[in-house]
Amino acid sequence: MGGDLAPAATVEGALRAHRERGLDVLLVGDEQRLKGELRRFGAEGELRVDHASEAIEMGEQPGQALRKKKDSSLKVCFDLIKAGQVEGMVSAGNSGAVLAGGLFILGRIDGVDRPCIGGSLPTVKGRAVLVDMGANVDCTPEQVVQFALMGEVYARRVFGVAKPKVGVVANGEEEGKGTDLTRKTSAALRSDTEIDYRGYVEGKDVFSGDFDVIATDGFTGNVLLKTAEGAVWAVRQLLKRQIQSSAIASAGALLLGPAFEQVRKRVDYEEIGGAPLLGVHGVAMIAHGRSTARAILNALSGAELFAQKHLEEDLGAAARRGAALFTQRAAS
Amino acid sequence: MGGDLAPAATVEGALRAHRERGLDVLLVGDEQRLKGELRRFGAEGELRVDHASEAIEMGEQPGQALRKKKDSSLKVCFDLIKAGQVEGMVSAGNSGAVLAGGLFILGRIDGVDRPCIGGSLPTVKGRAVLVDMGANVDCTPEQVVQFALMGEVYARRVFGVAKPKVGVVANGEEEGKGTDLTRKTSAALRSDTEIDYRGYVEGKDVFSGDFDVIATDGFTGNVLLKTAEGAVWAVRQLLKRQIQSSAIASAGALLLGPAFEQVRKRVDYEEIGGAPLLGVHGVAMIAHGRSTARAILNALSGAELFAQKHLEEDLGAAARRGAALFTQRAAS
Repeated sequence: MGGDLAPAATVEGALRAHRERGLDVLLVGDEQRLKGELRRFGAEGELRVDHASEAIEMGEQPGQALRKKKDSSLKVCFDLIKAGQVEGMVSAGNSGAVLAGGLFILGRIDGVDRPCIGGSLPTVKGRAVLVDMGANVDCTPEQVVQFALMGEVYARRVFGVAKPKVGVVANGEEEGKGTDLTRKTSAALRSDTEIDYRGYVEGKDVFSGDFDVIATDGFTGNVLLKTAEGAVWAVRQLLKRQIQSSAIASAGALLLGPAFEQVRKRVDYEEIGGAPLLGVHGVAMIAHGRSTARAILNALSGAELFAQKHLEEDLGAAARRGAALFTQRAAS
Repeated sequence: MGGDLAPAATVEGALRAHRERGLDVLLVGDEQRLKGELRRFGAEGELRVDHASEAIEMGEQPGQALRKKKDSSLKVCFDLIKAGQVEGMVSAGNSGAVLAGGLFILGRIDGVDRPCIGGSLPTVKGRAVLVDMGANVDCTPEQVVQFALMGEVYARRVFGVAKPKVGVVANGEEEGKGTDLTRKTSAALRSDTEIDYRGYVEGKDVFSGDFDVIATDGFTGNVLLKTAEGAVWAVRQLLKRQIQSSAIASAGALLLGPAFEQVRKRVDYEEIGGAPLLGVHGVAMIAHGRSTARAILNALSGAELFAQKHLEEDLGAAARRGAALFTQRAAS
């Protein structure tokens, strides 16, 4: 039920995931509306529908809403994971509530201090994992270290990068730059022997493809991701305006259509699909609030892949290794 | 002497500022090299050259370098402002050293806690002022409030915006979002009766033109600005690759050439020129490290405009008003 285009886009995306990719998808929400949407696609009875009489709205305080609305689609969905009836879920709704559900219903993997959201950033070479994308605004160095190490597991096991290169977001490449948080985070990651830590990464190098895992607190991560989204949008707007003001430019744009489309596909959230919670039991995938059917389809595929990889053990080990980097330092 | 393309680009930019815009420019640095550059343009004797035997490098610790290298081009330049021989300066060198010079040689305007760098962000409607662009990584709410109010003066008096709309960078629009820093900053700005405060601005809305002044700590400001730069670069790279792989796309790109050029002009640092220190006596303009002659030309014009506006009184009043918002709160 969550997302600006729900439930139409959610149902269509789920149906496509079932029909085109053979996923076993179950819809949770207002039964009447969901069945109505299925009928529109001639798919009545094709997907199982579990009724939930409530929905958590975008503006609601996440933890409170999840506690109060016991029959919300999100709560019912989390309970299905908890009960082992489904392996994972996708939501384009209130992302804070998804996080709260991950924390309080699914529960943290042993050793994880705070779960984070593993975002996906397009780069000129492929993709990078951005951790934390926005779950935790105020962070300790130990938490950001755990994000980085869990992100490394995600990049390696899900994106298939053999030896992910890890960086920490800062306002310059030199060691002396950054804040107290970034310096302590960076020093701890440098002392880890299992990852390929490459130091600070500046905003301008985030898209270079030289880093596979980009670690930061959730405030900075959110600003970074949305700024990139906004910058691409602004360039598109400015170009559109130029094109509309000239017949020659319009002809050029027509010829460039397929090239524009390829670039759009590389940078659009639709193709990225979703961002998983890292550090909780089970699979919870956060999709963009403006998710189209295509975005939901890709998020469901992402959730399936994530579930197939059975990352819990590796994520827990990474988090515990991260915590140990600090206890060792305190003891020495 | 500062900047990747210096002194060639610096001298050419200065010469163009003199020839095309009638600015009275003085060059500070290695006399032999600067005069050699002037000769290349048949301009020997056309600009005054003040010799400085040293130069502060990019990697040097700013405050230390400025103290040790008493005959550095930057130090000599600051002394010229201090002595009233010039009204302002432009540097594409070590920006930390420019900040240190502003602080320790020019000195803070009465009431200013920390000076900041006033960046310029292209938007789909025009330009927005970004404060702080990177001078202060760890900030108090009072400092960010001062940045916002000084940025408002800059947008109003220099960019000519009648009633600048002011926002604070956060990870969501709702009041409850953000960090302790952003919430306290936002509450104080909301209580100011003289500015048009519009609340939180998300990364994606930074380029919408709905905000004229975008306030944040220098760490976030730096990440935001460089991420935008990186995103635009990445889109360009991806598009270039598509264009090169197809003859039809190449033809389209040719027809779109002027449109691309217009967009480039809107978003390029070359056209923006420089970012002033806000809160110090005199005019110190920080230009991009990769400044071309055109960027230097525009930074010099920006410095002239800034000097003509005589902002010191207004900047000081804004800073003191910002500080008073906190003393009132503490007293009430």
